[in-house]
Amino acid sequence: MSEVRLKSQKAKDTASIMNRLTAEQKNTALLQMADALVSEQQSIIAANNEDIERGRNNGTSESLLDRLKLNEDRIAGIAEGLRQIVQLPDPVGNVLETFDRPNGLHVRKIRVPLGVIGMIYEARPNVTVDAAGLCLKTGNAVVLRGGSSALSSNRRIVEVLHQALADTDLPADALQLIEDPSRASVDEMLKLNGLLDVVIPRGGASLIRNVVENATVPVIETGAGICHTFIDESAQLDMAADIAFNAKVQRPSVCNSMETLLVHEQFAAAHLAQIAARFQAANVELRGCEKTMALLSGVTKATEEDYATEYNDYILNIRIVGGLDEALEHIARFGTMHSECIVTENADHAARFLQEVDAAAVYHNASTRFTDGFEFGFGAEIGISTQKLHARGPMGLPALTSTKYQVTGSGQIRG
Amino acid sequence: MSEVRLKSQKAKDTASIMNRLTAEQKNTALLQMADALVSEQQSIIAANNEDIERGRNNGTSESLLDRLKLNEDRIAGIAEGLRQIVQLPDPVGNVLETFDRPNGLHVRKIRVPLGVIGMIYEARPNVTVDAAGLCLKTGNAVVLRGGSSALSSNRRIVEVLHQALADTDLPADALQLIEDPSRASVDEMLKLNGLLDVVIPRGGASLIRNVVENATVPVIETGAGICHTFIDESAQLDMAADIAFNAKVQRPSVCNSMETLLVHEQFAAAHLAQIAARFQAANVELRGCEKTMALLSGVTKATEEDYATEYNDYILNIRIVGGLDEALEHIARFGTMHSECIVTENADHAARFLQEVDAAAVYHNASTRFTDGFEFGFGAEIGISTQKLHARGPMGLPALTSTKYQVTGSGQIRG
Repeated sequence: MSEVRLKSQKAKDTASIMNRLTAEQKNTALLQMADALVSEQQSIIAANNEDIERGRNNGTSESLLDRLKLNEDRIAGIAEGLRQIVQLPDPVGNVLETFDRPNGLHVRKIRVPLGVIGMIYEARPNVTVDAAGLCLKTGNAVVLRGGSSALSSNRRIVEVLHQALADTDLPADALQLIEDPSRASVDEMLKLNGLLDVVIPRGGASLIRNVVENATVPVIETGAGICHTFIDESAQLDMAADIAFNAKVQRPSVCNSMETLLVHEQFAAAHLAQIAARFQAANVELRGCEKTMALLSGVTKATEEDYATEYNDYILNIRIVGGLDEALEHIARFGTMHSECIVTENADHAARFLQEVDAAAVYHNASTRFTDGFEFGFGAEIGISTQKLHARGPMGLPALTSTKYQVTGSGQIRG
Repeated sequence: MSEVRLKSQKAKDTASIMNRLTAEQKNTALLQMADALVSEQQSIIAANNEDIERGRNNGTSESLLDRLKLNEDRIAGIAEGLRQIVQLPDPVGNVLETFDRPNGLHVRKIRVPLGVIGMIYEARPNVTVDAAGLCLKTGNAVVLRGGSSALSSNRRIVEVLHQALADTDLPADALQLIEDPSRASVDEMLKLNGLLDVVIPRGGASLIRNVVENATVPVIETGAGICHTFIDESAQLDMAADIAFNAKVQRPSVCNSMETLLVHEQFAAAHLAQIAARFQAANVELRGCEKTMALLSGVTKATEEDYATEYNDYILNIRIVGGLDEALEHIARFGTMHSECIVTENADHAARFLQEVDAAAVYHNASTRFTDGFEFGFGAEIGISTQKLHARGPMGLPALTSTKYQVTGSGQIRG
């Protein structure tokens, strides 16, 4: 039996135990895990150094090495993340609905764990702990398949977590790490219907595309964000400038940052030069439509491909539009249904935008950067779903649960 | 452009209009559709006769021809189904949550249509109307791909519905029928990410398996049911006998009927002969474990394959078990997470069964046949989801919706 199948089966074998754990039992286990990470931090850092060294020898960029790097501060932060998960309410067992039928049947709809969650992700070893904590808190078993560049770190982290679980009611086998670094292990997970209940990809666009295109196991798609800010004719200048600047520059590398700024032609004529200057002063490369190029200097032509690109970088497209309808059309064509914003003082335009734009989160007069589990107050973030099934937008703990109908009767049969 | 892509694009182009329709506008359209089916019934029956004749020439069985057959009564029933959908509350626009963040952002989570739904189904032409009604009521556009054996009926039905929509606010292009009867049209739909938001298969096991294995579009899986009834030691004889008989015999062809009866050994010793006689009198073929064969006559050996088969027929497996744990193990191994029942007077056993069995619907002292949208009071049934994501169990109208966060601010930016 392959490593993937063997470990997934072991995970599944714990599902009926996991399903029955109380919140207190799970929290006790999570706290043990947090403590163990801190007390074993030297061995984790030593293992991480192996990954760093191997990466450096392979020519990995310093910025990627920095994402991979663990030190005492970062491990303390990861452990603190687990402790924060402990503080969150456990959704498992929550009664979502109850109803009685005329025939006397009593029906309860309750939250239950999904079962076994497959996580497929890239380099950062903090995801190993984060995903383990979120899945175990919600009574799920989890099969982790991290990137090969963090394999030594991930292996040591999971050893430490397994040791921590030994003295708890939470079965250590509920946490599995796939060590096979080949693409074949990912491919096998994607087809493991019957053992894995869902696969969640976390990483870059190509990782996510591979999962979506090849999985027969249900997927929760996360990630890609081509987000827009539309500055309407009636927008307040300062507010519009601040929101647009924040959406692009505060953290360009993330999915809820802005890629294209749409500006009403009247507003553009009066104010775009001032807004653009602020972007250029922050070293944002500007690409624009022809009208934008006519207004501004230092702007190259934005192509259709540019409008369809998630830069995640200090690059911004600017397009001048005739009004709300043209902005809506652009967003419908190029958006990825993640986060979209209108800045306007026109209540009708705001209402239309909030109603008509098809996206996980739509904003009136606020930065798209708020699409985030912590900013929404969920206290944790498994990811931001960009699909429409199951969960959409920032996913809190309930997104890691399913439901079950419990029906009690007194001998009812169907006529 | 292929028929599938062209019609799916047309459907998608209506999504922003569909999204904005009021319940009244949609209900008016549905009532027009219902009236048109009745007033055009002769042309629909004539088209249906073509399908029946072609089927008969192709050697289709009489029972399948009966499922395909339309007459005035059946068309009246189909129209009545649309009128019942009109009576249901429209979930679109419902506010599911609202919260204010410390920074002043106001967040609303509302129900929105899924967008464009692809339905892939088999012979019965009533599904064409049923699916159209449910999807349009929830503000979705729908691309229907029915079975080739009902193509003439489906084509005429959709013509009639399109004519009915001409005088309404609901764009006729929101309803599309794929007429290409080849397997290629199904395959194309399954990969149409970006145009279709979800695919829902309705039909036999092989149709559903094809969709699950090949779709890159998200799927809501429906259907397969290997359901069990466990008669515990303490069960009341009459109740147990009635529930088991109902679960198997009342309508064996459907997914919530029982395939395997698990019986506690003490109960079996005292009462199984009596229960089995009733099944045999109803011409149910019995297959059993060795203990069952020792107790009863006229029982053939049940194989592992039998336990893993959804008969949908007058065949029943009987297995005698040592107690609850063995019953739970059998269900975990062979069940399809659809509907499972325990008959017992032991409250602890009932509680354990309801808690530990991983299925969409778990029953204490009631027939599994109640897993049904109408029986649950949802007033309509899109299908019974056997997956854990998005919707599980009988799906009412909310299962055809997604959600959206609407965030309103006053210039908030992220620090």
